[in-house]
Amino acid sequence: MHLSEKMPAQDASESLNHARADPSMPDNRPEINRLCLHTITTRSWDVETAVSRYAQAGLGGITIWREALEGRSPAKIGQLARQAGLQLTSLCRGGFFAALTQAGRQAALDDNRRALEQAAELGAPLLVLVPGAAPGQPLDKSRGQIAEGIAALLPEAQACGVRLGIEPLHPMYAADRSAINTLRQANDLCAALDSSWVGVVVDVYHLWWDAELPAEIARCGKSGWLAAFHLSDWLLETHDLLNDRGLMGEGCIPLREIRLQVEAAGFGGLHEVEIFSERWWAQDPGKFLQAILEAYQRHC
Amino acid sequence: MHLSEKMPAQDASESLNHARADPSMPDNRPEINRLCLHTITTRSWDVETAVSRYAQAGLGGITIWREALEGRSPAKIGQLARQAGLQLTSLCRGGFFAALTQAGRQAALDDNRRALEQAAELGAPLLVLVPGAAPGQPLDKSRGQIAEGIAALLPEAQACGVRLGIEPLHPMYAADRSAINTLRQANDLCAALDSSWVGVVVDVYHLWWDAELPAEIARCGKSGWLAAFHLSDWLLETHDLLNDRGLMGEGCIPLREIRLQVEAAGFGGLHEVEIFSERWWAQDPGKFLQAILEAYQRHC
Repeated sequence: MHLSEKMPAQDASESLNHARADPSMPDNRPEINRLCLHTITTRSWDVETAVSRYAQAGLGGITIWREALEGRSPAKIGQLARQAGLQLTSLCRGGFFAALTQAGRQAALDDNRRALEQAAELGAPLLVLVPGAAPGQPLDKSRGQIAEGIAALLPEAQACGVRLGIEPLHPMYAADRSAINTLRQANDLCAALDSSWVGVVVDVYHLWWDAELPAEIARCGKSGWLAAFHLSDWLLETHDLLNDRGLMGEGCIPLREIRLQVEAAGFGGLHEVEIFSERWWAQDPGKFLQAILEAYQRHC
Repeated sequence: MHLSEKMPAQDASESLNHARADPSMPDNRPEINRLCLHTITTRSWDVETAVSRYAQAGLGGITIWREALEGRSPAKIGQLARQAGLQLTSLCRGGFFAALTQAGRQAALDDNRRALEQAAELGAPLLVLVPGAAPGQPLDKSRGQIAEGIAALLPEAQACGVRLGIEPLHPMYAADRSAINTLRQANDLCAALDSSWVGVVVDVYHLWWDAELPAEIARCGKSGWLAAFHLSDWLLETHDLLNDRGLMGEGCIPLREIRLQVEAAGFGGLHEVEIFSERWWAQDPGKFLQAILEAYQRHC
């Protein structure tokens, strides 16, 4: 047996060495103006406060969650953000295409069309899609509905000038949130849809564990699908499947390594911090923002 | 765009149709003597009680956890189980090969050697391996250590007549329990190790979400690696990452479908129920056993 010749894991390890990051290298540290925050991360701030505080901190952009737009004109919020010097990175989130009934799938399409219009009014070039999964039907059926749903939206996406970003979610969300759980699946879906109006959202929290991640990041970038990059961390002691993400550096994800892989694959966009955390949400959001700035430069 | 021609998910769906189970078909129901329980599932019973109650219920086998052997002679427990008419399916569990230090890796090997001896004394043909992952080192490094650890144990496995069963764990355990998270990875590892003393443990809880599962089950069986098959269910509302598994039928895993795939791939062994559940553990184990018998025939 010749392990060194035959082990795929070891081959991957060797090919990664050039990209393995040394966090003490100041050259590798990103500038604050490459950082973008999701409004959900500082969810106790209304969107106007978020815009003002993010801009004050020197961030490069903002990703707006639809909840934050309630009762507001997306066009005005978009203008406010641009005037503050923030790039509108994405609107979060559409998707959830899988449903047991035709009526359910139609309702999802209608909602995604509204989201595309909102994104266009906002001036956001990307609508992030959580693919969806319907308990009570096989995952492969949900996968087919996701593909059909995205295909159905392509004309509107093009008309709005808003790209659709497929976000593969961690396998622990396969039951009811996403039947797309690896970057390979998302890439395959992009290949099948074959449209410049579809791309992929690479979120380290969902994908860090995958042995195929480096190869699929390279494929994603090379194919022109790499539309967004999301940061947070995986806590060793995760107490809740939804709202217990870590701040960068609190967990075990090789953040800088993945960030360098994404950039080596041609990604030149902002780095978006998306943290769902009851623990951090219980803190003052100003302090949380300060902790994010420090963690971003230290660990990403 | 020709979705129907190009979608991998839809192709998989079609190829699965022949194996999709109709739970109302009595022909598909397994016999109780195909059922095996893990002692951890009824953990408040000591191993002698477990042997007696499992045999009384007509089960085909028992998988013994090492904790249950404490202070006992494995040989005597093995004899007791065989006399009661139970097959000794496996010993759980060895593995945990990844460690930051050489001393840690050596300690793991020593412990696995003791486990192999225990399995041999017990008369169990398989030692289940939880591969391991060491927080603080890259996953690919842990993967290399897992491969090296298993390779180092092969002579003892052969000498003991006990096979090593690699169990890929759900990606949510990648941080500290297993850097092997898909059946494809476990199959690749078997291919690299190239020994009849290594096989794979297919556990539906860990693998059900994977779009490649049907193809990798077929590959696993065809290659002669399919060593064990574990059952439980994934709850839609999972409250705890470790001890909140469902009884079969309580969750969303297509259990019968996967069982039929495993058997179509040539697996003829027992079906092992391994449920970690604080909720069920709080019940009377006799009632839990009864619920398992009913759920097994209804859903598996």
